[in-house]
Amino acid sequence: MQNITKPTLLLDERRCRRNIEKMAAKARRHGLIFRPHFKTHQSLEVGRWFREAGVDRITVSSLDMATYFAQEWTNITVAFPVNILEINTINDLAATITLQLLVESEEAIAFLAERVMHPLSLFIKIDVGYGRTGIPSDDFSKIEALLRCINAAEQLRFSGFLAHAGHTYGCRGRAQVLDIHNQSLRKMAALKERYPDSFISIGDTPGCSLAEQFNGVDEIRPGNFVFYDLTQAQIGSNTIDEIAVALACPVVATHPARNELVIYGGGAHLSKDRLEDPPYGTIYGKIARPADGGWQGLISGMYVKKLSQEHGIVHVPDSEIDQHPVGSYLLVLPVHSCMTALAMRSYTFI
Amino acid sequence: MQNITKPTLLLDERRCRRNIEKMAAKARRHGLIFRPHFKTHQSLEVGRWFREAGVDRITVSSLDMATYFAQEWTNITVAFPVNILEINTINDLAATITLQLLVESEEAIAFLAERVMHPLSLFIKIDVGYGRTGIPSDDFSKIEALLRCINAAEQLRFSGFLAHAGHTYGCRGRAQVLDIHNQSLRKMAALKERYPDSFISIGDTPGCSLAEQFNGVDEIRPGNFVFYDLTQAQIGSNTIDEIAVALACPVVATHPARNELVIYGGGAHLSKDRLEDPPYGTIYGKIARPADGGWQGLISGMYVKKLSQEHGIVHVPDSEIDQHPVGSYLLVLPVHSCMTALAMRSYTFI
Repeated sequence: MQNITKPTLLLDERRCRRNIEKMAAKARRHGLIFRPHFKTHQSLEVGRWFREAGVDRITVSSLDMATYFAQEWTNITVAFPVNILEINTINDLAATITLQLLVESEEAIAFLAERVMHPLSLFIKIDVGYGRTGIPSDDFSKIEALLRCINAAEQLRFSGFLAHAGHTYGCRGRAQVLDIHNQSLRKMAALKERYPDSFISIGDTPGCSLAEQFNGVDEIRPGNFVFYDLTQAQIGSNTIDEIAVALACPVVATHPARNELVIYGGGAHLSKDRLEDPPYGTIYGKIARPADGGWQGLISGMYVKKLSQEHGIVHVPDSEIDQHPVGSYLLVLPVHSCMTALAMRSYTFI
Repeated sequence: MQNITKPTLLLDERRCRRNIEKMAAKARRHGLIFRPHFKTHQSLEVGRWFREAGVDRITVSSLDMATYFAQEWTNITVAFPVNILEINTINDLAATITLQLLVESEEAIAFLAERVMHPLSLFIKIDVGYGRTGIPSDDFSKIEALLRCINAAEQLRFSGFLAHAGHTYGCRGRAQVLDIHNQSLRKMAALKERYPDSFISIGDTPGCSLAEQFNGVDEIRPGNFVFYDLTQAQIGSNTIDEIAVALACPVVATHPARNELVIYGGGAHLSKDRLEDPPYGTIYGKIARPADGGWQGLISGMYVKKLSQEHGIVHVPDSEIDQHPVGSYLLVLPVHSCMTALAMRSYTFI
């Protein structure tokens, strides 16, 4: 392993490439366009691994990310309700790449119609039941109104309908995920029936990982699968050994009497994202077992139970208490890899 | 207000300097050394406002932060159990500044004794009841053992006892905070009685904000008070109008039927730190009312109820629903200003 001196986000390239290839193969098998979401890794280098797997278009969730990836990618969807205050960035990007944005209000479309200086493709954001944002898939009067606005504007083009079934994150097990996934497909299929030429894009990692049925879908946009994490493992999207990132954290104090270790690795590194994991309760990470210059499996009974900004408190069973002295380090598998990667902002490749 | 186009962390300099001056005045009044914790702001510029208030020594929580602030500060305590894996950084810093570190194990002291190349001051970290880390204040045999280790090493010097009564963060109201604060003082006083020459350092923002009794204490190290936040306001450490930072977040979608707005501003900006705030439930921020190029008070009934990476979902009462169209922005007061500042990594001064 590398020379670890402080919290370090290790990225297992072999696992990561395997996750990419598996999803790319599924897309090919189902005749789907694969437009992976790059908000998880936010790395040009990891992006190149996707290109080697045949990917030529991507998804991001902000215009800042689009600007970053426009260094190497020429076809980008920003899967976030368009922020019209960034019109200058939109115009800069649309001048050089193929840019797709999301709309869900006449106001935003009218603003774009007036201010965009280059052809721009717009998806209508559809809410398939997650309830975060978007137009309900059966609100045809609203959809018609948006389509009229788009079609009336010279520089705007209607791309299709885009949904994110984020409510699969609340599922546990394949059956629940497939239930929501299939409901979403039916809702999008009803739209496609009404608007036969429309392009259909969906995107959640649980659905894309577990489903083998994508009738009517043209494109998938999963992101989290590139690294996976404990939340996805609990949902059933991946095995523990498909998780491709681990945060190496120095042990700085030991409290055997209360079965606790203190690690240098807190909310500043893992983020404060948490997971309810019975019987442990709320956890912020689990500890992987070092193996072969990387890791394999979990150390049973060890988990991050509490975080402050720089401190992590790790529960450690009696059998392990002497195995992790001050000056050693633990490999923490994250609850939410997107947020951990964002907090760390760099990787050490292994 | 500035030209806001995306999530922007606004820092109200007047409020911030007032918070600094108020705490500096309290330290002077009680004859205490004021060694503020700089993990909250992590900014050389804000640091200079402290210097103007008479501060000449600081606290940080990592050697990385110490390295950053060593550009302008020559006396730094790293209030975190020493991470011996960073011995090279410790030696680099100790060569140029007065560096104090925290210890709580013989192993760490023995390692330092062997490897430090410059005189180094060590605090023994005392647990006054928070239970995160440190030696219980009445574990005299352990304290004696640590003192023997320190005194046996040529380059190591015993600085004193340092505590962080972080359990005041669980308090609500002055009485609860003072109860813990006074318990902590009694525990530290017992140590001072046993070791009369020892220096006593304490540090939590609630205690330092609300107490007017610091018997036996030599130094205070609060940090969060520089900005304050909703958590500290709920504890009773500050008023809403003492909060010195607000995150300006563009409104990107409106859902009047369910009394919700979607803002560009999520866990990537606010962090995922949360607050139980009856009757709202779990919240991630409240919305300040714009005033005089800044803000004043809250917009009643508006709060951030959910966060994803880039999205925030804001509850909005009927009376406000038409006041915040797509293309406007909201001023979000953070639940935890340290984590929001860390996520944003820069300020716009107002």
